[in-house]
Amino acid sequence: MRPIEEIGAALGLGPRDLVPYGPTKAKIRLQVLEARRQSPKGKLVVVSSITPTPAGEGKTTITIGLGQALVRLGRRAVIALREPSIGPIMGVKGGGTGGGRAQVVPVDEINLHFTGDLHAVAAAHNLLAAVLDNHLYHDNVLRIDPRQILWRRVIDMNDRALRHVVVGLGGRTQGVPHEGGFLITAASEVMALLCLAEDLADLKARLRRILVAFTYDGEPVLAEALKVEGAMAALLRDALLPNLVQTLEGTPALVHGGPFANIAHGCNSVLATKMALALGEICVTEAGFGFDLGAEKFFDIKCPAAGLTPDAVVLVASVRALKYHGGVAVRDLDR
Amino acid sequence: MRPIEEIGAALGLGPRDLVPYGPTKAKIRLQVLEARRQSPKGKLVVVSSITPTPAGEGKTTITIGLGQALVRLGRRAVIALREPSIGPIMGVKGGGTGGGRAQVVPVDEINLHFTGDLHAVAAAHNLLAAVLDNHLYHDNVLRIDPRQILWRRVIDMNDRALRHVVVGLGGRTQGVPHEGGFLITAASEVMALLCLAEDLADLKARLRRILVAFTYDGEPVLAEALKVEGAMAALLRDALLPNLVQTLEGTPALVHGGPFANIAHGCNSVLATKMALALGEICVTEAGFGFDLGAEKFFDIKCPAAGLTPDAVVLVASVRALKYHGGVAVRDLDR
Amino acid sequence: MRPIEEIGAALGLGPRDLVPYGPTKAKIRLQVLEARRQSPKGKLVVVSSITPTPAGEGKTTITIGLGQALVRLGRRAVIALREPSIGPIMGVKGGGTGGGRAQVVPVDEINLHFTGDLHAVAAAHNLLAAVLDNHLYHDNVLRIDPRQILWRRVIDMNDRALRHVVVGLGGRTQGVPHEGGFLITAASEVMALLCLAEDLADLKARLRRILVAFTYDGEPVLAEALKVEGAMAALLRDALLPNLVQTLEGTPALVHGGPFANIAHGCNSVLATKMALALGEICVTEAGFGFDLGAEKFFDIKCPAAGLTPDAVVLVASVRALKYHGGVAVRDLDR
Amino acid sequence: MRPIEEIGAALGLGPRDLVPYGPTKAKIRLQVLEARRQSPKGKLVVVSSITPTPAGEGKTTITIGLGQALVRLGRRAVIALREPSIGPIMGVKGGGTGGGRAQVVPVDEINLHFTGDLHAVAAAHNLLAAVLDNHLYHDNVLRIDPRQILWRRVIDMNDRALRHVVVGLGGRTQGVPHEGGFLITAASEVMALLCLAEDLADLKARLRRILVAFTYDGEPVLAEALKVEGAMAALLRDALLPNLVQTLEGTPALVHGGPFANIAHGCNSVLATKMALALGEICVTEAGFGFDLGAEKFFDIKCPAAGLTPDAVVLVASVRALKYHGGVAVRDLDR
Repeated sequence: MRPIEEIGAALGLGPRDLVPYGPTKAKIRLQVLEARRQSPKGKLVVVSSITPTPAGEGKTTITIGLGQALVRLGRRAVIALREPSIGPIMGVKGGGTGGGRAQVVPVDEINLHFTGDLHAVAAAHNLLAAVLDNHLYHDNVLRIDPRQILWRRVIDMNDRALRHVVVGLGGRTQGVPHEGGFLITAASEVMALLCLAEDLADLKARLRRILVAFTYDGEPVLAEALKVEGAMAALLRDALLPNLVQTLEGTPALVHGGPFANIAHGCNSVLATKMALALGEICVTEAGFGFDLGAEKFFDIKCPAAGLTPDAVVLVASVRALKYHGGVAVRDLDR
Repeated sequence: MRPIEEIGAALGLGPRDLVPYGPTKAKIRLQVLEARRQSPKGKLVVVSSITPTPAGEGKTTITIGLGQALVRLGRRAVIALREPSIGPIMGVKGGGTGGGRAQVVPVDEINLHFTGDLHAVAAAHNLLAAVLDNHLYHDNVLRIDPRQILWRRVIDMNDRALRHVVVGLGGRTQGVPHEGGFLITAASEVMALLCLAEDLADLKARLRRILVAFTYDGEPVLAEALKVEGAMAALLRDALLPNLVQTLEGTPALVHGGPFANIAHGCNSVLATKMALALGEICVTEAGFGFDLGAEKFFDIKCPAAGLTPDAVVLVASVRALKYHGGVAVRDLDR
Repeated sequence: MRPIEEIGAALGLGPRDLVPYGPTKAKIRLQVLEARRQSPKGKLVVVSSITPTPAGEGKTTITIGLGQALVRLGRRAVIALREPSIGPIMGVKGGGTGGGRAQVVPVDEINLHFTGDLHAVAAAHNLLAAVLDNHLYHDNVLRIDPRQILWRRVIDMNDRALRHVVVGLGGRTQGVPHEGGFLITAASEVMALLCLAEDLADLKARLRRILVAFTYDGEPVLAEALKVEGAMAALLRDALLPNLVQTLEGTPALVHGGPFANIAHGCNSVLATKMALALGEICVTEAGFGFDLGAEKFFDIKCPAAGLTPDAVVLVASVRALKYHGGVAVRDLDR
Repeated sequence: MRPIEEIGAALGLGPRDLVPYGPTKAKIRLQVLEARRQSPKGKLVVVSSITPTPAGEGKTTITIGLGQALVRLGRRAVIALREPSIGPIMGVKGGGTGGGRAQVVPVDEINLHFTGDLHAVAAAHNLLAAVLDNHLYHDNVLRIDPRQILWRRVIDMNDRALRHVVVGLGGRTQGVPHEGGFLITAASEVMALLCLAEDLADLKARLRRILVAFTYDGEPVLAEALKVEGAMAALLRDALLPNLVQTLEGTPALVHGGPFANIAHGCNSVLATKMALALGEICVTEAGFGFDLGAEKFFDIKCPAAGLTPDAVVLVASVRALKYHGGVAVRDLDR
């Protein structure tokens, strides 16, 4: 692995542009984007796949490999990927760092705490939940109906026992009883908003508009009514900056933002994609969970929201996936 | 603020000894301690106070100020403090970074995510809880009694509604129902163990011995029965390294570990204290929550466990505290 | 109102055949049925209705009026009706004793505790629930999965707050936590079985076969595994006896058993129907909730189970109901 | 067993004074008391015991035996006892009908549903709980704090799993979530009030004054605020009438009301005691749970409330109890 400063320098980034997290990870300050606002942008290449199989079909591996190949061909390619969550890694699923020679590194650090983005998302998300419950506890002037709270809590863990819970037990001094539950952090709406935000002010505006509950009278309650977006944004300030790492061949990779594709738009952050377009000739990025789900959301949610237009699409269709969708049993795919 | 590399260099630390987290925070690798094992150690000065008052009586401020004063006197002093938790900061309490000219900086970053230690403690703690509940769910061969689970979950948030909860609701596929609750992360036993550990192997051994539950037959169940200490230690690997920051005057300060004094030993980590003693002529450290609670635990728990012997004790006894304990009302303390 | 002994005497019942509950209610001993086993039986007339309207369409009133009319015509008619539950009466619904001149009396007593049948059903039902939870508490040798308990509790009350509850909270000495809920007593499976039973032995056999839960291995657990049918039958011994009252014109009426038609078979007990057929020339009975629900269950569940064959069917189709089903608004039905 | 009408006739009661429940149980109408208001009253004899032992020391047996002996001596004695609850009977404890030749009969019927008094108490108690929860559900204009509801529910069953529950789960249409629990019916405050009431109007007044909850502002909420005492009293109308049964020797016994002595005053109803004093020369009654608990409450609660003055006290002190309290082990008491 090369020092992250070197990887940055190859993209024209100086020490003041980077916030190092150890020797091989860094966040890129948003001033970089601001300074290049008028400069020409790179080409946007999106990698997606046909409907995936139980084994996974190599979308991330192709994305990383394609980025590395473009660099070997002499192009300044930058890869943009989602960051993985701890939860599924500690469970059955593999991480999201690719495989074989096509990996982003350092694998362990990316797969565990990385630069703390998921922790920050969880803290901001749970702060909103705590402030809401605190409002219920103290006179509830907004008349929020405890049975109509939409805002659950999150944890970066596959913890089955937390999906459906009753909170606020213990008597008068301990909260207001109601049903609730924990989502995995990647499913947080805060994660989705972080990945759509153009800057901190835009993030704050999006946080304000979160629908958290309904009142006894059926009126919607937005987060702004709880006046907590400032504190949430403070917790998310660093998480908003794209993370820079490298592939096994030293190709720069922005690994940033990780919303689930089944419930949100399922691709890395708008800021990371724009940063890659500003820093490289070609940005190779990935849209997860099959063409009909992840790519569709990339085209219809992320691109219009961020003013992006893809220049090329790579569709991964492995022989295994074709066999599987043609009716071959999983155990026979390798024959 | 000076670059953290400069602060490190003044203590004889090179770039390979530090893991930077932005320009003004760094973790110190444990190899530093190993390399200095045979070298002479500094003097250990402990700052505590008489029973504190509602307003707080300036223990942290004295600790920082004393460290700065010793440096002005030409001594290589190193300060060792606990790190604050987000929870109370977002609530009513102030942070734990001192006040006036006697502060450790960067205040905001230390008070928010800092270097992610509390997030790592929470993740490790909650992983053990999730693995325990997963064991209950899958046949429960250890015969753990769901009503006798001692291991609750933690969150770095003052969230009243999470103190007493019922988890595992939602039917057969959603876990095993039982009562539980969330502590604040600073109250996690994992935090206490992290602050007593001599190295990663010692931490793992301590994690293995955590008492998590009793069986239906009344037998104790230790964490080792769940085979999760390896994953917990992986999550805690970076959190174990002491954090280096500076005071407003550039005095080096190790801010690391934050167990609560009311339920644990209430002082910064053994590793940070030993690191300060290895790097400085004088280590000025703090033992929280009054002489009869925090200092007593410092003398009777931390010192014997770590083989430490204080060379001097500073007892803070402000005029305000003396007035308060003499019967003056809080509103009259400043007259 | 005439003394209940007189009403009984007109049917050939002596003092030893009746168990009085105050001056105007009595239970009829099952020996009466036994003694008349070889005697000719009366004709069975079933009253049902087209799909009912929000206002109700007078099924019970027709049943009672028809019985009274037959008596005026000189026939020994006996009416057989369901008994009402307290719950809905204390709520919005009216009782089930008819209206105008076609009522069974004493109205208040029939509508409240009557002869205690619903209390007995609730006690037997809840005893099974308590024994099941006690089994969970004491070693659970049957390996019942607390998340797969099908047997809820009942209460003779419209109590919204009891529909979904978590029970067994409070720690090791207080039960095993699980989700549960209360049905209204009329919805108890015990009520349905009581209304199908031919005698106490048959009732016991039916109680034994109740499916109460599944084990962790997915095996069904029947009530007989809990060895509680004897105690349940003891609680139901008197409830099994048909209740004798009279109409405002002194026509004998058996008001006994009250399962809901939406979840059970929705008509009075087999024993009451058979008793009416044994005591009268004509038994006029009612099958609730519309021809397509209540009457269908009468024909397909109660009749085959009890060996009954209706001799005539009365279908109530009020002008109001025809208007309503033809599209007239409720507020316009009376125009 | 003699017909209950005969037992009544020996006390001067005609058919219009009694409400029969089968051939051997009856309730006595309150008009009887009214008619004898000016007549001379019998002597009041109270049976209590020294602190009881695990085996029980025969208070009820002595009470019944003493009554029977007085009758043999030619005195018109009437016994007054508490009625047992089903719950403990289905559990480990014996019933409360005496033993040997000194029993009240019919044992089974007294021990099971008897005349439905406990069911009526439970129905009235739970109606108040349901109305309170319904008030919470519909706008809660009284501002009742769900965490400060004092009024739990009752069931006539030893059901460990119902002691601590969370009710009101299931979403917006299913109630307001809060903690609650079930007491055994004998512990209901309604039972205590029924046993102190002089007549139905007095009972209603007492029901109105029940403290059910506190508001968010800390104000007490009485049952009268929920306007439910009328319906509660309707449910209790029959339960208020004393029950007449007989001993094995045909001595009349009033078995009525069964509050627990540990939480309430622990003796039979004021109405039953007054009825016994009006009908007999001597009323032999029992004050439960030892002289220092049950008898103390008899003297200090029941007597002043009802204007009663005992004429004699019988203190049961068995040799077994003296041995036990002298330190002999339970297994050695019979040596």
